[in-house]
Amino acid sequence: MRYCVIMCGGVGSRFWPYSREACPKQFLDFFGSGRSLLQMTFDRILDIVPAERIILLTNRRYAPLIREQLPDIKEENILLEPARRNTAPCICWAAKHIAARDPEGSMVVLPSDHLVLKEKAFHEALLKGFEFVEGGDRLLTLGIRPSSPHTGYGYIQKSSPIDGTEGFYKVRSFTEKPDLELAKVFLSSGEFYWNAGIFLWSAKSILKAFRLYDPETAAVFDRGDGLYAGSEETDFIDRAFPSAPSNSIDYAVMEKARNVYVETVDIGWSDLGSWKALYEISPRDADGNVTQNCRLIQQDCHDTVFAISDREKIVVAKGLNNYVISDTGNALVIYPIEDEQKIKQIVNDVKDRFGEHYV
Amino acid sequence: MRYCVIMCGGVGSRFWPYSREACPKQFLDFFGSGRSLLQMTFDRILDIVPAERIILLTNRRYAPLIREQLPDIKEENILLEPARRNTAPCICWAAKHIAARDPEGSMVVLPSDHLVLKEKAFHEALLKGFEFVEGGDRLLTLGIRPSSPHTGYGYIQKSSPIDGTEGFYKVRSFTEKPDLELAKVFLSSGEFYWNAGIFLWSAKSILKAFRLYDPETAAVFDRGDGLYAGSEETDFIDRAFPSAPSNSIDYAVMEKARNVYVETVDIGWSDLGSWKALYEISPRDADGNVTQNCRLIQQDCHDTVFAISDREKIVVAKGLNNYVISDTGNALVIYPIEDEQKIKQIVNDVKDRFGEHYV
Repeated sequence: MRYCVIMCGGVGSRFWPYSREACPKQFLDFFGSGRSLLQMTFDRILDIVPAERIILLTNRRYAPLIREQLPDIKEENILLEPARRNTAPCICWAAKHIAARDPEGSMVVLPSDHLVLKEKAFHEALLKGFEFVEGGDRLLTLGIRPSSPHTGYGYIQKSSPIDGTEGFYKVRSFTEKPDLELAKVFLSSGEFYWNAGIFLWSAKSILKAFRLYDPETAAVFDRGDGLYAGSEETDFIDRAFPSAPSNSIDYAVMEKARNVYVETVDIGWSDLGSWKALYEISPRDADGNVTQNCRLIQQDCHDTVFAISDREKIVVAKGLNNYVISDTGNALVIYPIEDEQKIKQIVNDVKDRFGEHYV
Repeated sequence: MRYCVIMCGGVGSRFWPYSREACPKQFLDFFGSGRSLLQMTFDRILDIVPAERIILLTNRRYAPLIREQLPDIKEENILLEPARRNTAPCICWAAKHIAARDPEGSMVVLPSDHLVLKEKAFHEALLKGFEFVEGGDRLLTLGIRPSSPHTGYGYIQKSSPIDGTEGFYKVRSFTEKPDLELAKVFLSSGEFYWNAGIFLWSAKSILKAFRLYDPETAAVFDRGDGLYAGSEETDFIDRAFPSAPSNSIDYAVMEKARNVYVETVDIGWSDLGSWKALYEISPRDADGNVTQNCRLIQQDCHDTVFAISDREKIVVAKGLNNYVISDTGNALVIYPIEDEQKIKQIVNDVKDRFGEHYV
């Protein structure tokens, strides 16, 4: 049977204060559509995997938000990490859980806070991907054709195509966050794709890969065999999970395994990983401004993002170019978009100087 | 006996949204000192006029704010206008009220929302002013030596000095809001002073002047003779006041009367009539920024005013020069200070388009 694992434990500090630790990006109605990014992710996968086989992986503090936003998800499908250990331990646990429910099960891993605009292409890509990984011991990742030499993404280099399939390639190499020169080379070569963080495999294959390439993590979770998807799973995880090393699935497995493949797709993807990314995919007014939620009265503003949590708030602005205005509760940010990577450091400073309740 | 009339019915739309119709400028703790501008005005006059002879003139909707901010003021000293009719009808009523309590009474009229930094000079000016108006049938206004060719003020041209006094002059002319060229001529001539809206006279003299120069208003309030400062005053005013023509004391009396004098004073005065005025008298950080209330983390901001109603709010800003950032409840303004006169029109637009609860 096919399962879906939605990863929704991120804290989203890049969109502070619009996004908060108490309510990160994936739980926000980013586009004023009435659905949060998580809900949109859930809605999008429902045609491929039914609700009873969609598993939510998140930090304990977000359990109430998940229950509120996805009331159709049964309690046993919400897996709560007792500690933050990056993606590898989460995925290993999810694979163990799924294997306990169906030893032959396959799974797709989805980020909860990305945007996919081409839903039909996404569905087709996942269906083809499931067939591909169900046909052998293969680890598959989705690759997005790069549109710019972005230095914040991981890049996948494709190798030879796979006979009898279209759009599937053996992976030659992974490169995490290249510098700009290298990213430009990648872009012009035509061999490199962005790593969207969407993975498909059978539970059996990924568990085998963990045992081969990240035996320490595999050992932590092997000790729970017989308990997964049962009444003692939570107790076991609460004890064992914190002892797993913090690592990403890319470093732990994907960059080392020999049976890694990429499916190159065109699904209208954005990781919404920055104000710039949000700006690029959002509808804009005639002056290039993006308005999230608020009522804007602007003069002579251009290419500026207004992200205001209070839908009733009126913003009056003049003469701002390439800014982000982010206003939520006890914090207001007025910052040039091009410097947005500095906001993360400021959030840390604010936390240190003024306290947790600001972040 | 000496009385003081504090005018506190203004709506303060120039500082929107920091100042709101529901809580205008005079009721705000503008400087984070713990006292509102009204309270500062009250504190400042107490050495000259005791609380039982300080009269508050305001719009009905502000009565609760006055009771809250000035608990020492007795109910009979709060005069509530049933309608907005500018300053002339208010002052005529106040003079009638004072004359009923003491036919020989004199009075000083004070705006509630101005700043006076030199308290000692202010006290001396008022004591000399009271003596001056108690010595004859004289209408006195305080004149401030202009420091710039401001086009938003009224100017008083002094004439011959008064024998036996220092700093008192007969008034030659009043000019309301001159254009810039004229204001420059005024400034260089040395004969012109800003009209601070602070007036002194005996109740008898100002009532006589109303009968001579604004007989329509005088007639409205003459009909209440015998009722002022008594149990029927409020009923009478509620009926009669709305029929008084809307007019300023300057137009109604000061520009017409022959017995008008100016006392030139140096009292560290600011009308706080604009963000620019606020900026000029406020303490600034090393980059010239003024912070009202909020916690500011700024980079590369200069000569910018941050006026945030929520003292706990953190503002993160970069690269703003000569801006005002004003954030209160359901409205946020990010606007160049030099264009601030346009904010008033925007407030009207906001009111029309989105409703009263925004202003």
